[in-house]
Amino acid sequence: MLPILFLIPLLLSTTSHASNQDYCVADLTASDTPAGYPCKPAANVTSSDFIYTGLSEPGKLNALIGAAVTPAFVGQFPGVNGLSLSAARLDLGSGGVVPLHSHPGASELLIVKSGHITAGFVDSANSVYIATVKTGELFVFPQGLLHFQVAAGKKGAVAFVVFSSTSPGLQILDFALFASNFSTPLIAKTTFLDPALIKKLKGVLGGSG
Amino acid sequence: MLPILFLIPLLLSTTSHASNQDYCVADLTASDTPAGYPCKPAANVTSSDFIYTGLSEPGKLNALIGAAVTPAFVGQFPGVNGLSLSAARLDLGSGGVVPLHSHPGASELLIVKSGHITAGFVDSANSVYIATVKTGELFVFPQGLLHFQVAAGKKGAVAFVVFSSTSPGLQILDFALFASNFSTPLIAKTTFLDPALIKKLKGVLGGSG
Amino acid sequence: MLPILFLIPLLLSTTSHASNQDYCVADLTASDTPAGYPCKPAANVTSSDFIYTGLSEPGKLNALIGAAVTPAFVGQFPGVNGLSLSAARLDLGSGGVVPLHSHPGASELLIVKSGHITAGFVDSANSVYIATVKTGELFVFPQGLLHFQVAAGKKGAVAFVVFSSTSPGLQILDFALFASNFSTPLIAKTTFLDPALIKKLKGVLGGSG
Amino acid sequence: MLPILFLIPLLLSTTSHASNQDYCVADLTASDTPAGYPCKPAANVTSSDFIYTGLSEPGKLNALIGAAVTPAFVGQFPGVNGLSLSAARLDLGSGGVVPLHSHPGASELLIVKSGHITAGFVDSANSVYIATVKTGELFVFPQGLLHFQVAAGKKGAVAFVVFSSTSPGLQILDFALFASNFSTPLIAKTTFLDPALIKKLKGVLGGSG
Amino acid sequence: MLPILFLIPLLLSTTSHASNQDYCVADLTASDTPAGYPCKPAANVTSSDFIYTGLSEPGKLNALIGAAVTPAFVGQFPGVNGLSLSAARLDLGSGGVVPLHSHPGASELLIVKSGHITAGFVDSANSVYIATVKTGELFVFPQGLLHFQVAAGKKGAVAFVVFSSTSPGLQILDFALFASNFSTPLIAKTTFLDPALIKKLKGVLGGSG
Amino acid sequence: MLPILFLIPLLLSTTSHASNQDYCVADLTASDTPAGYPCKPAANVTSSDFIYTGLSEPGKLNALIGAAVTPAFVGQFPGVNGLSLSAARLDLGSGGVVPLHSHPGASELLIVKSGHITAGFVDSANSVYIATVKTGELFVFPQGLLHFQVAAGKKGAVAFVVFSSTSPGLQILDFALFASNFSTPLIAKTTFLDPALIKKLKGVLGGSG
Repeated sequence: MLPILFLIPLLLSTTSHASNQDYCVADLTASDTPAGYPCKPAANVTSSDFIYTGLSEPGKLNALIGAAVTPAFVGQFPGVNGLSLSAARLDLGSGGVVPLHSHPGASELLIVKSGHITAGFVDSANSVYIATVKTGELFVFPQGLLHFQVAAGKKGAVAFVVFSSTSPGLQILDFALFASNFSTPLIAKTTFLDPALIKKLKGVLGGSG
Repeated sequence: MLPILFLIPLLLSTTSHASNQDYCVADLTASDTPAGYPCKPAANVTSSDFIYTGLSEPGKLNALIGAAVTPAFVGQFPGVNGLSLSAARLDLGSGGVVPLHSHPGASELLIVKSGHITAGFVDSANSVYIATVKTGELFVFPQGLLHFQVAAGKKGAVAFVVFSSTSPGLQILDFALFASNFSTPLIAKTTFLDPALIKKLKGVLGGSG
Repeated sequence: MLPILFLIPLLLSTTSHASNQDYCVADLTASDTPAGYPCKPAANVTSSDFIYTGLSEPGKLNALIGAAVTPAFVGQFPGVNGLSLSAARLDLGSGGVVPLHSHPGASELLIVKSGHITAGFVDSANSVYIATVKTGELFVFPQGLLHFQVAAGKKGAVAFVVFSSTSPGLQILDFALFASNFSTPLIAKTTFLDPALIKKLKGVLGGSG
Repeated sequence: MLPILFLIPLLLSTTSHASNQDYCVADLTASDTPAGYPCKPAANVTSSDFIYTGLSEPGKLNALIGAAVTPAFVGQFPGVNGLSLSAARLDLGSGGVVPLHSHPGASELLIVKSGHITAGFVDSANSVYIATVKTGELFVFPQGLLHFQVAAGKKGAVAFVVFSSTSPGLQILDFALFASNFSTPLIAKTTFLDPALIKKLKGVLGGSG
Repeated sequence: MLPILFLIPLLLSTTSHASNQDYCVADLTASDTPAGYPCKPAANVTSSDFIYTGLSEPGKLNALIGAAVTPAFVGQFPGVNGLSLSAARLDLGSGGVVPLHSHPGASELLIVKSGHITAGFVDSANSVYIATVKTGELFVFPQGLLHFQVAAGKKGAVAFVVFSSTSPGLQILDFALFASNFSTPLIAKTTFLDPALIKKLKGVLGGSG
Repeated sequence: MLPILFLIPLLLSTTSHASNQDYCVADLTASDTPAGYPCKPAANVTSSDFIYTGLSEPGKLNALIGAAVTPAFVGQFPGVNGLSLSAARLDLGSGGVVPLHSHPGASELLIVKSGHITAGFVDSANSVYIATVKTGELFVFPQGLLHFQVAAGKKGAVAFVVFSSTSPGLQILDFALFASNFSTPLIAKTTFLDPALIKKLKGVLGGSG
């Protein structure tokens, strides 16, 4: 005897209404909200909203830091809107470094695709946690703490990082201080760095003030 | 002139108290709570709590499904406790498949490390979203929906998946039905599958009832 | 002596501004967001926004499953928007069944209004939890797990179910597989069901692919 | 040809570890936390943890208010722990009333099982929303606002209420003022009620101070 | 030798996209959502969005209650949108009182700027917690509970209160009952207050019904 | 005629059970969890749990930075546990400065009690937002971003800051780099600061490595 399955048209009307609630693909043309972007109409959602191909190729290494960071945040990958996940790709040449930075809005999980990476962070008690993370290994950076990734050994490395938010933010220490218009006297006052040094660094990084 | 930095002992007493709040490494010997495990004492936390090496080697492929799934949930990787992130490694041989399943407690981001994977999910409106995800590409599965991953083409594939929870759960459809003690009459009643078929499948998968 | 109460006009201006924050009746004409719909202007809110009468009458039983499910999600009952609650009514004739399904976005509380209902779910460890729930009794289904409700005994039953979300979603297993355009080879590949069987079931339920 | 399903022992070890994450039945002997009670060991969880039979019988009507309120919060129904849902049963005799009260920690959904109930609440702008809710109809009370339920017409009524928290709290206005040790001068000062009246009411309700 | 810092233009494109995620200054001309207002465009955000000067001057004391409450909720201070914080200023003349009230959507932290304040709340068990809070001291009122602030001693007092929400709401007991159109019979029915008394109080406070 | 109020003993048993849910005073002797500390038994809670007097006196200014920061986090003020609020007091002498720092787990609201404070933060786009905040004015720092407070003008200042978490964390930039055991080569590698400079600063601040 065959299994028997029957139509439940009554339930169908329910599900058509509920379908948009399973996900909320970002309508990036609308204004963002504290919980993410408004949803693209369900009728316009296709498979292509849930795939992101922009991390498949290596980023172009910046010659000076020997690294590239390519984001797949909600701005690039609208399908993650509302799902509390986003990602980025790190390409590190030999000696490459992702300078000290923090993500104000997310914790981060590092997955090394190839090579070895020295990863670390500093916590509120000024304890430093560092490890060399090898291919296929994971390292987790708790939310909002200063951290870094450096290619270990003589070879480069490739990694993916995943965030617990669709908009983790990214505050790079050197840029916050020396590529901004943060006034030199205030930087000196609040970091105790020498004003002459600050001005010199701003000259290099393009900061003003 | 040198930059000048001075000791702020008053703040130090503050920070030592605050240090444990940056993260909460799971004490797996204590009882879990709805928000995760109680924290291991801060004094016992070391760098090794934030690295996980258990995904560096391929899982042993199961001959029948040609796949292996190796988890790095909070139970394996206590450092993610409270950080709303966890991971798993998928190894797919040629033709390998991760059967239809859902994670009741998390959305999932797939990152293909090597090979091609056909990934897809079904939503509440019974729409099916499927894509072939190539090396370095991402695919996102919204929370709680039935989904699958299959090796595409003739080669195998390796992928990492990351979850928006430290305890995503994992409900494999075939196992829920046929490897459990879900009674045959009730399965038949609620799926309209033929009882004889259900019994046969239970025989294969070890289910009872 | 009489109690004395006086006007506090200064506070009034505050409260008029704050009034809209107590609730956020959905403006269903606007785009949904990950946290729910934008709010209808406070000036247009009336008592009728907080009452829902659509569950007062029995749903029309579908002859084949002997059941009707009538939702009061945010799409039907805009007053629940932002309040993390919604509901549905279950009408089960004698032998009626709500087939195996899950709600990807909510836990569910069943309240039996009349009759007896056999309710159950399967968890990530493939354990099955089943109980016969009598009039006035409650049963809770944790979020995202496959579950069902069946009329117990020879009589029908009526129940209300309440969800921990305004948009719980609803994935009915048979529909996801056999009323969708989920391709037969992929279903076979990911469920190990026989393709011929899948095609036959799709014929009954209207699926394609 | 038969469908074929095979054992996936590798996944089983995963799922056994994950099983406890699907739910967290309260261990009421442990200390509560801000997110709920610690979980009962998974090995001790049975179907009886997910059913609650304590609301099946009418509560004994208090002769004076003609009503009974019977809770199924986490303290009575440990299975809801962590699931953001709980319930209560209201029994109202003819003319029965649940006096003005609020739930500081949850919104509330009223489902009328039999009879008619006049339900209402006051918002921050001092607007009053009232409706007569008939059998099978719903009414929603936004979180934290003063509200009430009264039997409408000449007959009694029975209702279930469901909350968006496992511990909604319950602050009954008359009790907060007149059944407590809230000092009479302070009540008078902060409500502008006459001290003599307050003392008299405390005499009736058992308050002191 | 000088420290060397280099340009990382690749990261810059990322950060420009991410900048709007760090905060979400309210666009008060758009419709509110359950998670707060849509964000003002990042390009229009200035320092003035993060400062609020409206609490720097004493509020004008209402002669009858001898107090003024001046809010800095999201409606007044759009910079707090999405940040789960807002504030208000309390000015209390000698004998001044902020009458019994609750905030349905937030806990509250009182910080006394000058003078002494008697602060208290009543909990769900009708326990009363009261303390005299002196200059520079703090008192916390858990969410949704009835509470008050009264100038202690013979002098006035000034305080700031901070809320765990940008829209805490404000339900003043006397206003909810006697400045609204809550019908006298229903108030009597649900508070057991005498109808004649209710009518008299409505006359004073402007209520109707 | 007198208002009449009657005992509702049935409700009392409910409320006694619910009382502990209104708040959760921290039991600091128990292990912390991701959602905060376990609750002190309700029977031991008194008014003194909700008041904190530790910020009433000026902190002792550190001679070098001319400032003192005194925290009232959950570790000092257990009554805020679970309520998403905590505080600190800032005392700034003439020229005093709270050096550049961030709170990884909370947004911050500054309330100036006396004097003027120059406050500012840098966002992910390296924009700097700075304002001089006068007595009684507010300034908000979004979560996780580097920020500072400096006494403006020639006089000192006193302020209270309130956080959107009971455990905001505190990462002081100079301390993270130069008072820790963060190795000099890694600091140089990830900040591009000169190693000789780093070693010198570590000598001053007590760092090693």
